[in-house]
Amino acid sequence: MGWLCLPEVAATSKVFNFSAGPGVMPAAVLAQAQREFLSWNGSGLSMLEMPFTGEEFKGVLRQAREALRALLDMPDNYHILFMQGGASAQFSLVPLNLLGNARLADYIETGYWSCKAIREASRYCGVNIAASSAGTYFDRMPQSWHLDAHAAYCHLTSNETANGSQFHGIPNTGHLPLIADMTSDFLSKPVNVQRYGLIYAGAQKNIGPAGLTVVIVRNDLLGRARPSAPAVFNYQAQAEADSMLNTPITFAVYLAGLVFRWIADMGGVAEMERRSVQRSAQIYHVIDTSDGFYRCPVQSAHRSRMNICFTLANEGFTTRFLSGAAAQGLVNLKGHAVTGGIRASLYNAMPDEGVAALTDFMRRFTVEHGCHV
Amino acid sequence: MGWLCLPEVAATSKVFNFSAGPGVMPAAVLAQAQREFLSWNGSGLSMLEMPFTGEEFKGVLRQAREALRALLDMPDNYHILFMQGGASAQFSLVPLNLLGNARLADYIETGYWSCKAIREASRYCGVNIAASSAGTYFDRMPQSWHLDAHAAYCHLTSNETANGSQFHGIPNTGHLPLIADMTSDFLSKPVNVQRYGLIYAGAQKNIGPAGLTVVIVRNDLLGRARPSAPAVFNYQAQAEADSMLNTPITFAVYLAGLVFRWIADMGGVAEMERRSVQRSAQIYHVIDTSDGFYRCPVQSAHRSRMNICFTLANEGFTTRFLSGAAAQGLVNLKGHAVTGGIRASLYNAMPDEGVAALTDFMRRFTVEHGCHV
Repeated sequence: MGWLCLPEVAATSKVFNFSAGPGVMPAAVLAQAQREFLSWNGSGLSMLEMPFTGEEFKGVLRQAREALRALLDMPDNYHILFMQGGASAQFSLVPLNLLGNARLADYIETGYWSCKAIREASRYCGVNIAASSAGTYFDRMPQSWHLDAHAAYCHLTSNETANGSQFHGIPNTGHLPLIADMTSDFLSKPVNVQRYGLIYAGAQKNIGPAGLTVVIVRNDLLGRARPSAPAVFNYQAQAEADSMLNTPITFAVYLAGLVFRWIADMGGVAEMERRSVQRSAQIYHVIDTSDGFYRCPVQSAHRSRMNICFTLANEGFTTRFLSGAAAQGLVNLKGHAVTGGIRASLYNAMPDEGVAALTDFMRRFTVEHGCHV
Repeated sequence: MGWLCLPEVAATSKVFNFSAGPGVMPAAVLAQAQREFLSWNGSGLSMLEMPFTGEEFKGVLRQAREALRALLDMPDNYHILFMQGGASAQFSLVPLNLLGNARLADYIETGYWSCKAIREASRYCGVNIAASSAGTYFDRMPQSWHLDAHAAYCHLTSNETANGSQFHGIPNTGHLPLIADMTSDFLSKPVNVQRYGLIYAGAQKNIGPAGLTVVIVRNDLLGRARPSAPAVFNYQAQAEADSMLNTPITFAVYLAGLVFRWIADMGGVAEMERRSVQRSAQIYHVIDTSDGFYRCPVQSAHRSRMNICFTLANEGFTTRFLSGAAAQGLVNLKGHAVTGGIRASLYNAMPDEGVAALTDFMRRFTVEHGCHV
């Protein structure tokens, strides 16, 4: 048998990827996927080449689903769907699947991504903005909600990736099904699934591969789809077909399964939360003790532990900050095109060393640019 | 720098994958993807971790699009979209995007997949079956079409993966836009793009990674989408956003680009056609000279060069054939669940050695089971 020898680039290059998505993936997962890239489980076939109807892939999908169910301690009356199209597709598919005969839905307006969800929903139904922080430039998550009795559901965005805000507590919506876009903080902490009617998450943050969307839906919400909902995007149809109504995004499901197992091996979502609290606090501490050199526009109680957004008091320094950071191997720190500034995304797979390197760089940058920390 | 040494499994295990999809990928493409899996182009990041808004991925997407345009010698008045959801999603998205104010579309009924497209389209509009081979159990591609003057378009399935039939010539549809699901014979031969209004293809056959869908659409067909079409599945919106209206399926676009380059390096689609004609003929020859031991239900002039479907005269031998073939490293030869029998898919990436090994095995199997060839 021949041997293929590859330079262990990732281990030696010390690049830390702060991208908001697609984002950093666990090094151990990438290493395993590389090892078995040409021959999964000794089969002689790449996981990319496996028929989705074969026992091998069906096992991979089943294991991924069971691992996710265990991670979130999920009750039996919820289905896990592996869908395609990302969270943006769900902006349309949630109303198409859940409105039933209703003509109205509640939405919580908290920033860039919830606004996109609202704009898309308003093509299918009336939208009641049950709460909004638009009036304060999205510097917080609104806690006082005014739900409409005729709404089919209430939709929120648990973490605003572009704005750097996050819900750290959710008001009670009573019997109204609560629908959460958890794309950017999924699996970063425990979640009481029973509080939600439906949770969806694009995978390209804390799971990994872009294109896959995880949908967790309570059984009683199935069967309400509008006739114009495309068949392969019908929650009930995919639930009944075990997410294999059409060819699933097989390689992404395989990678997701590896990531779920990695999270479990690391100590589960409680450990992910402990780390994210500690790590985000380190960066916010540098910001808050910089005498205004760095500024975070989000109120302390509503700051995201996943996407730390901040600006430099001297905007002319932003480009210099980005190029200086990149020179140290701290890459993809540029803020969202709409909000600007700097954004450090601390997804589960970011090593602690990356956070330490970033806070070091931030401190040095303030010193080098004439400010004391 | 450390080195990671991997057994060259694919080179030594001699497994030939006849799966209908996801199917075999070019060994050279898989090897390159494995080599640069942890660090694309020396970046220290996996292509899986690249932000889709970064210059690196934008370059990858642009190169993939240009490579495909060159392969098909595509006119300038066509857009290439990299979408998600597979061909089955297009069964809904074609009518949602192309009907405009029309209430009717022509469909050509030729087998399992065209029937699925028809069933889905009939949820959005009236369907005129302009031609059908249902009456002869889909043993041919109908050449006499009766188009409706009020139809918005005419839809066909260029290759029926489950039935083993393929169009080797398409009647003229005049001014009526011709829409083709080319999922299972895309890039297996030259195609005169100008004859089509729209071509779509799920990637998991001749491109590789499941989840990606290539849509080639003529400019004048953009802008007709129904209000209920989800925004991210709106052809015009994705055309205007260069397929980046939402996070694209980045790793699949990257792999597709590698496959497009591999096809060009191999001699382009004309060479793919030469090989597929020759290789499929070798298997059909064994079938046709087996004195009825093997039977192909499709008429000679309409047989697929991609998916060779056949049955054994003695049905009890089917299981033995499959297990015997698998023992020789010839895997995933089981026919479609609906049609049964054997199916050998000869996508571009199947090595000639695989076809030789299969014909050898077929000949030996007839001898061992008491029939002369």
